[in-house]
Amino acid sequence: MSDTTLLNQQFRLAARPVGLPKPTDWQMTSEAVRDIGDGEIVVKALYLSLDPAMRGWMNEGKSYIKPVGIGDVMRAGGVGVVLASKSPKFVVGDHVSGSIGVQRFWVGAADDKYGAFFKIDPTMAPLATWLNTLGMPGMTGYFGLLEVGQPKAGETVVVSGAAGAVGQTVGQVAKQLGCRVVGIAGGKDKCDFVVKELGFDACIDYKAGDVRAGLKEYCPNGVDVYFDNVGGDILDTVLTRINMRARIVICGAISQYNNTAPVKGPSNYLSLLVNRARMEGIVVFDYADRYHLGVAAIGKWLKEGNFKSREDVVDGLEKFPDALLMLFTGKNFGKLVLKVADA
Amino acid sequence: MSDTTLLNQQFRLAARPVGLPKPTDWQMTSEAVRDIGDGEIVVKALYLSLDPAMRGWMNEGKSYIKPVGIGDVMRAGGVGVVLASKSPKFVVGDHVSGSIGVQRFWVGAADDKYGAFFKIDPTMAPLATWLNTLGMPGMTGYFGLLEVGQPKAGETVVVSGAAGAVGQTVGQVAKQLGCRVVGIAGGKDKCDFVVKELGFDACIDYKAGDVRAGLKEYCPNGVDVYFDNVGGDILDTVLTRINMRARIVICGAISQYNNTAPVKGPSNYLSLLVNRARMEGIVVFDYADRYHLGVAAIGKWLKEGNFKSREDVVDGLEKFPDALLMLFTGKNFGKLVLKVADA
Repeated sequence: MSDTTLLNQQFRLAARPVGLPKPTDWQMTSEAVRDIGDGEIVVKALYLSLDPAMRGWMNEGKSYIKPVGIGDVMRAGGVGVVLASKSPKFVVGDHVSGSIGVQRFWVGAADDKYGAFFKIDPTMAPLATWLNTLGMPGMTGYFGLLEVGQPKAGETVVVSGAAGAVGQTVGQVAKQLGCRVVGIAGGKDKCDFVVKELGFDACIDYKAGDVRAGLKEYCPNGVDVYFDNVGGDILDTVLTRINMRARIVICGAISQYNNTAPVKGPSNYLSLLVNRARMEGIVVFDYADRYHLGVAAIGKWLKEGNFKSREDVVDGLEKFPDALLMLFTGKNFGKLVLKVADA
Repeated sequence: MSDTTLLNQQFRLAARPVGLPKPTDWQMTSEAVRDIGDGEIVVKALYLSLDPAMRGWMNEGKSYIKPVGIGDVMRAGGVGVVLASKSPKFVVGDHVSGSIGVQRFWVGAADDKYGAFFKIDPTMAPLATWLNTLGMPGMTGYFGLLEVGQPKAGETVVVSGAAGAVGQTVGQVAKQLGCRVVGIAGGKDKCDFVVKELGFDACIDYKAGDVRAGLKEYCPNGVDVYFDNVGGDILDTVLTRINMRARIVICGAISQYNNTAPVKGPSNYLSLLVNRARMEGIVVFDYADRYHLGVAAIGKWLKEGNFKSREDVVDGLEKFPDALLMLFTGKNFGKLVLKVADA
């Protein structure tokens, strides 16, 4: 990679946002891609994953992962292709997935312990799918549902953010297990999609009306597992409909991420007591040593045509700041990815 | 029991309280104790158990147990002595524990499925102890801690309402298991009691100041198990100090029971996500078929002098309305019991 004239472009965190990230919270920078040393690789970004969790990484304070520093390249998972390698782990042309960051090129040690890259098979599924049902959101849904939600055939599983990246996996895995699956999503199009395309039994349009009435209608036997991606009022409403020994998987709380007021705690949490129910958090990284099992299972279902993966692709690195906001206004339809380059 | 002139006196629920129960929410009635038929017994109340949960039973609406009806005798556990029996299960003079209600005499079928009486051994422990560490609160603490909290030796267990009925059992059982135990209680006397008498490692006086600072000081390795009897701000504060895979046992929320505003949900519940932690409810009735195991374990520790049981005895059935309020103002010191008769 010496003599390269490759120009990297990056989005760096310029300021910690208050509420929704503003354009001035970002700084776009350019720099030449540096030479690599022994053990290092250059990865060219093809698709970047845009996730609600990114909002949390922009805040200061202790969380499950350290915050992005001011002036640092914004963290983002992505898929790309190896352009140069002085590592025995990868050869030029390998397709890889890992923590690329919001930039055109990633340069560093191939065996970096944190966020190490791993090879992906582009013949198994389109590249963007490796950021969706075969990627972090898919693994979050798969392991979160199976390990924390522990659904049994015949039980009723409710998932919010049903058309989103995690939600579409949760619902489809639950259907594979023989559960009754009810989604909660915003708008008729998303609801139609999860029912007609993904095979959910029903979907409640929280923008159209009464979630409580929807739960009564579509979950006549109550809720055994609730996979929560949104928090806020929807979590509180579902808590009124849970069954004895229900499991609530706390995966996210997108309704609360841009709050400037304190997070709204679930007022109905004493329903956990009444119903001897459980509320438990899930962070996908805990299952890293078993991702291959999740990928194999979902990959098989995808191949058989029993599983779908819907991505919402925004084209162009420069669109990053606006694209990210789509997550918080519910504008994306399917897993949101940012296309950075063709190949 | 024919020809009896026994006069029963009862506290009946006259109105559903708003906030703290008022004197006018009760009606005191008198009636002759009726004759018994085949299979029935008369139990003379000696001690009644006064519990925070009683406040919930006075509300309308679905809970883990049906509400007390307007005009019904207030539900209460108690210990008493069998005065008359036409049941093969009991003979006159047996000491029993069961759902006596707030009255002087209980009359009914001995094998009533709900709230059946069972014999207790008054030589094993004083009668009031059978409403405390050997009774429902003891079983709540014992099974709630072991089954839901699942503490391991060396872990840090925090319990609120530490000097109360459930709290004293939780902390002492956790000490038996080799845990570090930190209580939260109101006032220096209660804190001194749980540390000096019950052997807790430390106790935070929430009335004196900063619970957060106390947790930092006394739980230097974080909180692995939190047994919550109080809810509200204390639950929220503990949530900021939990460890990875912590278990929060939701046993009660005494701070919220007399709310006229909605219950305050735990704003910091996303700490469950960050820490992959769990919040789970416990209702003691689920362990009814294993109470004898809890009684045997705690009874053995009591006998060995390794376990203490502190009751706060208020004398006189007529004191019931005022005594109940002591629970919600934190005036009781130890398990609150109402003494109805000597023998």
